Amino acid sequence: MVSRGSGVLMRRREFISLFAAPAMAQVSTSVEQWGVFELALPGPSSGNPFTEVTLSARFRYGSRTAEVDGFYDGDGRYRIRCSPDQQGEWTYETRSNSPELTGKSGAFVCASPGAGNHGPVAVRDTYHFAYADGARCFPFGTTCYAWAHQAQELEEQTLATLPTAPFNKIRMCILPTEYAYSAQGFRPYPFEHTAEGKQDFTRPRPAFFRHLEARVLDLQRLGIQADLILFHPYGRGGYANMGAEADDRYLRYVIARFGAFRNVWWSMANEYNFAKTKTAADWERLGAILKSKDPYGRLASIHNGGELENMYDHSRPWITHVSLQSSQMTEGRKIRARFTRPVLYDECKYEGNISRRWGDISGREMVHRFWLGAIEGCYVGHGETYEHPSNVIWVSRGGVLRGESPKRIAFLREILENGPPRGLTALDSYYPCAAVEGEYYLYYFDVHQPARYAFGLPADARFRIDLIDPWEMTVTPVEGEFQGKAPVALPGRPYLAARIRRIS
Amino acid sequence: MVSRGSGVLMRRREFISLFAAPAMAQVSTSVEQWGVFELALPGPSSGNPFTEVTLSARFRYGSRTAEVDGFYDGDGRYRIRCSPDQQGEWTYETRSNSPELTGKSGAFVCASPGAGNHGPVAVRDTYHFAYADGARCFPFGTTCYAWAHQAQELEEQTLATLPTAPFNKIRMCILPTEYAYSAQGFRPYPFEHTAEGKQDFTRPRPAFFRHLEARVLDLQRLGIQADLILFHPYGRGGYANMGAEADDRYLRYVIARFGAFRNVWWSMANEYNFAKTKTAADWERLGAILKSKDPYGRLASIHNGGELENMYDHSRPWITHVSLQSSQMTEGRKIRARFTRPVLYDECKYEGNISRRWGDISGREMVHRFWLGAIEGCYVGHGETYEHPSNVIWVSRGGVLRGESPKRIAFLREILENGPPRGLTALDSYYPCAAVEGEYYLYYFDVHQPARYAFGLPADARFRIDLIDPWEMTVTPVEGEFQGKAPVALPGRPYLAARIRRIS
Repeated sequence: MVSRGSGVLMRRREFISLFAAPAMAQVSTSVEQWGVFELALPGPSSGNPFTEVTLSARFRYGSRTAEVDGFYDGDGRYRIRCSPDQQGEWTYETRSNSPELTGKSGAFVCASPGAGNHGPVAVRDTYHFAYADGARCFPFGTTCYAWAHQAQELEEQTLATLPTAPFNKIRMCILPTEYAYSAQGFRPYPFEHTAEGKQDFTRPRPAFFRHLEARVLDLQRLGIQADLILFHPYGRGGYANMGAEADDRYLRYVIARFGAFRNVWWSMANEYNFAKTKTAADWERLGAILKSKDPYGRLASIHNGGELENMYDHSRPWITHVSLQSSQMTEGRKIRARFTRPVLYDECKYEGNISRRWGDISGREMVHRFWLGAIEGCYVGHGETYEHPSNVIWVSRGGVLRGESPKRIAFLREILENGPPRGLTALDSYYPCAAVEGEYYLYYFDVHQPARYAFGLPADARFRIDLIDPWEMTVTPVEGEFQGKAPVALPGRPYLAARIRRIS
Repeated sequence: MVSRGSGVLMRRREFISLFAAPAMAQVSTSVEQWGVFELALPGPSSGNPFTEVTLSARFRYGSRTAEVDGFYDGDGRYRIRCSPDQQGEWTYETRSNSPELTGKSGAFVCASPGAGNHGPVAVRDTYHFAYADGARCFPFGTTCYAWAHQAQELEEQTLATLPTAPFNKIRMCILPTEYAYSAQGFRPYPFEHTAEGKQDFTRPRPAFFRHLEARVLDLQRLGIQADLILFHPYGRGGYANMGAEADDRYLRYVIARFGAFRNVWWSMANEYNFAKTKTAADWERLGAILKSKDPYGRLASIHNGGELENMYDHSRPWITHVSLQSSQMTEGRKIRARFTRPVLYDECKYEGNISRRWGDISGREMVHRFWLGAIEGCYVGHGETYEHPSNVIWVSRGGVLRGESPKRIAFLREILENGPPRGLTALDSYYPCAAVEGEYYLYYFDVHQPARYAFGLPADARFRIDLIDPWEMTVTPVEGEFQGKAPVALPGRPYLAARIRRIS
């Protein structure tokens, strides 16, 4: 039986939902590698199933086992999801404090992945990323905090925009934000209301989460990573102040629901330091839950507000990469080295024109920052904040893109994707340069406009040089082959780049 | 008798040179306020007069006295210079270890200053500058390190260029530099050579210094402050390594020769920290000499190389202002506060296209940095480094200006000179703003391009607002009068400014 959701991903046995009656499923049930096997079980609906019923399953593949939590999906239905990462036969057996749910066992076959399914993204080569099938991933993110909390028409507009944009990652909040730029188009609350009209943090609303799941799968279909923001300090919803017990329960619920989707990344918080209700001990406790409850080890981060001095201690074991808010684009190499983790400038301000310093930089400046970050061997995220009569701005509610930067970001993405698969490292060079030394050099001259430059290439190899205009999106080969210190004439304008590739 | 020099300044009794024979000069001798009275005396020429003959004079004005060193000018001539700062009768009496030179006394009258003579510049209101007559001085400097060590034609070209440029201060080296961009057009050495062809640091060459004096007076005629760099670490001339005794003697000689010129500022060193031959104790000893031997208390600084971490301790008592090399344009307000002295970004890189990071920024970037510095309540210096077949670049040898920034710098200078005479202070505002609070606000939006902004003006006053495009050099009044928090529509482009002036 095929699950609900956007429906589109359900082709090719990517997402198998199995009602486990009879108790032993047929081994002929198959799901593709990195797809989702879901076991749906009927169970108790009285009392508060969210807090009173425990449910998990032990999945087994050869000698490997993984313990995965299930979750209550309302109406007496329970679900357990597993995303198998190896092809072949998998078996499972459930455990629960409910007799109806415990001891259910079965098996399924994990088959080869379908076209476009590269598996989840993980850190590769310390500072970079790759999909599980080995394909490289150069994250080019955007941010639409509340895009999946909007009216259907607007959400569909966002989904129609994304394939035209250069982004393969999107930062989005699970919990509604309810701040200035997202107050309209508010979705139903994520928790049921009490008789007094208050939110009951012990009772998630399944419909809310089902909707979000569908959107995450929509993104998956588009090849976009969903960087799910688990906590945030915004709004009157009270989500910044649910209390430790509710925080933990909510987190486990989200992991159980979303963790099996291969395009999920965890962002523990947006602007964690603005949440005055939580201490470092709270974040560490939540981080420990994430690490213990997510059997896939999905990418996980925690995003600061303000500047670098508010950076979380990214050496913590539950954190896989650095998710920065900063406009100090030339600090990236130091931060990479400090934490021996990839660095993503997830917010370096947004292209737009609202009266906010974080949302009013020009398209040129946005593109400039993408290049600066790339030259640090880091990755940079986009956001857009143009005023519009509709009151819809991209960074909050999605919709359409109006800015000048996206197509130039696409141009940079193409350059990096056609560059060394292992990614680049900043050199201690005279002009800013990221490289695989001896093979490939990407210079970005920033405000500098030298009329000529001797790149100081290895003398024992030959190279071709392309001059790149990041704004005009032109690549102009320099005639000839180069080695050693021969000076190369440059256009004498600022904000240009040069790509140098070894040919022999 | 009128002294040699460019000749031009000698009109209006600005520079009186008196051969003090007979021993008592006529009281009818007069010099204008802040001009130069010079007593020229014949004396011994045997041995080494530079080291063997001491000479000074005590100048007296009412109950005030000032002890001023004289100097040997070759060919048996000695000179003592005094720039009187008060109108009325002055007297003097010489002291020397030479019977020929000691005990000479006389008097002169200090008359009112001529047109365009505002006196020397000094610090005013802690962070700003004013001429002695009370006129405000907003320093807009440029740098031509070796311009006065060039062939006559080139030096005259520089002097013809300066009146077309917006600069009222020029940084220039006394000692030849002999580095890459100044190696040609080398002037005769500042010291005599020994029989072995080495420079004899005990014997300054008067012709060399006379030439420099003429150039300093040429600048004075143009209303330009001569920021004289006393020491520097460059070149094969050996001037960075003369030894403490020679350093001290050279410094006293320069103070005696140049100190009476009202447009002289002292820059103890350029890139002092690159002179590995000198310690902090050396600089402090030289600073103490400067403070004790310069009776005028001319503006004095010491310029770092590299970045802010190399800044000298500008709280030292002999230092009047901070002379920075830095591109960290938004640190100015902190540095001002730290040292309670005016801050000049004397080098924030130069407009040009040579293959040097310090000499290849665009005209737009140069202008941008001038604005950023101004908004910090600081002052910024210019330099230009465009490649040219003549091998003459402005920052080193002078000549002509080819860049795009000077006319925009002139535009900014005009804005500041038409602003509050007491100068501006950076506010802790949402967008960068320098102000005299309640009266005048100069915003610079940097990379930001808000479509509208509520400036948050005082509610009890009325203001006019002008939108300024620093690159296009346009000032566009916004219709109406403003107060309080009314939002103002802005053009939605980056690098724009707004000027807000109180009208009632």
